[in-house]
Amino acid sequence: MTPEATLARFREYMVGPTRFMTLLSCFELGLIDALRDKPAMSATDLGEAVGVKPDAVEQLLFLLVKEGFVGYDEASGGYMLAALAAVPERDLKRALTYMNMIKVVALRQLFHLTESARTGTLVGLKEFYGAEGTLYGAVAEHADLRESWATLMDTVTANIDPWFFGNIELPSGARVLDLAGNTGLGAVNTYRMKHVPGLRVTTFDLPEKEQECLANFRAHGVEEHCSFIGGDVFDGIPEGFDVVLIKHFLDMFDKDAVLQILNGANKSLPVGGQVDILVPVYPEDVRETTNSNVDFFPAFFIGCTMGQGGPQKLSTYRSWLEECGFEVTRAVTKNPAELPPDVIPVPAVLCATKTA
Amino acid sequence: MTPEATLARFREYMVGPTRFMTLLSCFELGLIDALRDKPAMSATDLGEAVGVKPDAVEQLLFLLVKEGFVGYDEASGGYMLAALAAVPERDLKRALTYMNMIKVVALRQLFHLTESARTGTLVGLKEFYGAEGTLYGAVAEHADLRESWATLMDTVTANIDPWFFGNIELPSGARVLDLAGNTGLGAVNTYRMKHVPGLRVTTFDLPEKEQECLANFRAHGVEEHCSFIGGDVFDGIPEGFDVVLIKHFLDMFDKDAVLQILNGANKSLPVGGQVDILVPVYPEDVRETTNSNVDFFPAFFIGCTMGQGGPQKLSTYRSWLEECGFEVTRAVTKNPAELPPDVIPVPAVLCATKTA
Repeated sequence: MTPEATLARFREYMVGPTRFMTLLSCFELGLIDALRDKPAMSATDLGEAVGVKPDAVEQLLFLLVKEGFVGYDEASGGYMLAALAAVPERDLKRALTYMNMIKVVALRQLFHLTESARTGTLVGLKEFYGAEGTLYGAVAEHADLRESWATLMDTVTANIDPWFFGNIELPSGARVLDLAGNTGLGAVNTYRMKHVPGLRVTTFDLPEKEQECLANFRAHGVEEHCSFIGGDVFDGIPEGFDVVLIKHFLDMFDKDAVLQILNGANKSLPVGGQVDILVPVYPEDVRETTNSNVDFFPAFFIGCTMGQGGPQKLSTYRSWLEECGFEVTRAVTKNPAELPPDVIPVPAVLCATKTA
Repeated sequence: MTPEATLARFREYMVGPTRFMTLLSCFELGLIDALRDKPAMSATDLGEAVGVKPDAVEQLLFLLVKEGFVGYDEASGGYMLAALAAVPERDLKRALTYMNMIKVVALRQLFHLTESARTGTLVGLKEFYGAEGTLYGAVAEHADLRESWATLMDTVTANIDPWFFGNIELPSGARVLDLAGNTGLGAVNTYRMKHVPGLRVTTFDLPEKEQECLANFRAHGVEEHCSFIGGDVFDGIPEGFDVVLIKHFLDMFDKDAVLQILNGANKSLPVGGQVDILVPVYPEDVRETTNSNVDFFPAFFIGCTMGQGGPQKLSTYRSWLEECGFEVTRAVTKNPAELPPDVIPVPAVLCATKTA
């Protein structure tokens, strides 16, 4: 890579924040919806429709015209949807949910990334919300964080859980513990997506989640098959289960905490018991361009959600599982080509059995 | 452009903010300097050297390894500079100056872009600094804004002024007015770079700039040839000059204000008098990829510095000049290939003569 190519790449990085917000702002201002309703509007028409000075409309749409997302007819001065006209609404909604989450949870907070990395704390979250601790605590207190975060996580869960449950096997009569199972949707999905006779699923999370979790079980009609145990993963994992599910969780922690979790799961399980893990992974060759996890998650976890953590390679998780007394029986990375092209996380499933 | 390609492009946009801060943070933490001093350091060595947990070092460097900026030796666990080793220090410093300006002046403020576009005010600047008005007022009050902004502008001026002055012609004995000339460095450069007998240059800017401006003239030994007039461009432009320079200024305003400035210049000049303009421009075909101005300036001016403005195409400035009673005698856009590849602004020179 020549110095010229390196510096050109720096320029791409430099326009990252303005590109991101220019695109999102065109949606937030209602410019795209206005053009969907009525093509061939001029900057003046659009400005009137959405309450923005035509000069600003014209400026912000330049980039979307450059990208071919929006078209512009020089002769008439009219704009129309171009590539954006062909994107199904459902796909656009998914992408915008993710973009909104990045704006609310990450954009400003990233200013403090360097200090967050130095201190292992979320300097930005404290600065903007007065919150100590992690994003997952702050979402309980702050509606804007909660809405942008929870909406995204529901989308992610809906898209990825079927693939996860299609990849794991639960024995008949299995007693399953959903580790850090939040308010029970993972347990509900486990029961619904695995048609296993006599299955029982227990959500394990902080005691304050219990009421909402039990209400969710009742709302989904699974209260006879699902239950809740309150506690903290780092204080010990309950015994009496055959299977421990660890979904969307290991990537939140540094190595020492991940080992603590896996050792805890090992201690709680009988020999032959299994863990089933869902986690985003980096490609074995990190230079692979089809996987954007390294472009996003390090800064996101360290600077915006945890003050630590980040995904690992599949081979790293495999070796950590072995280090903690498990034999890996299945390790599958989702083919990025099977994910919608706007989706950042490339997930993997790891299944492992306690050997000793 | 297929829906798939459009959504893939959205993903590129989504990772823009995290990519930007991950790269900058690796410099801010001192990881790159540490590797320059001593190659083959492991994440643990680096963590000790810069005071960051090795887990975070490893996470943040993943992206730089992906890009080929930094190399990683799987066998030894050691990192070394790869592409970054070959980039001259001067180039890297210029790019980092720009990146720091984007971080301080834009990153957080962009969160409020949509409201800034709606109101024509700098919602972010008010939110983070309690500042009313524009960035150019706020830099006087806030050291962090001033340092990041002024350092950048000095770099930009040093790189672009020689090209600008090489493109304009000043007649012998010319009396030159440098419009919005700030603290006089443009006037100093005019005098030094144009060897014209009897040249006199006057900086025109707000009265509070006078003392610093005159001090600059003395420091550069040009006080006999340069002077200062205090005033506001929008209240009228002083008469008695043959040439008005308008550098780094027109792009800060919406069309109505630009026309007011050009009409004011026309009114102040005698017939045959000239304006010489330096301004970043959009390419005539906005889809041209070698010019990143539309990726950066709309959001930057509307959301971060002015609450309005943004560059135009060269043809737009030409037609506005004609509308205001000028004949354009020269219009040259800098060849992007002649700019260092990390530099965003692609500037143009327009020279025009008052016809009536």
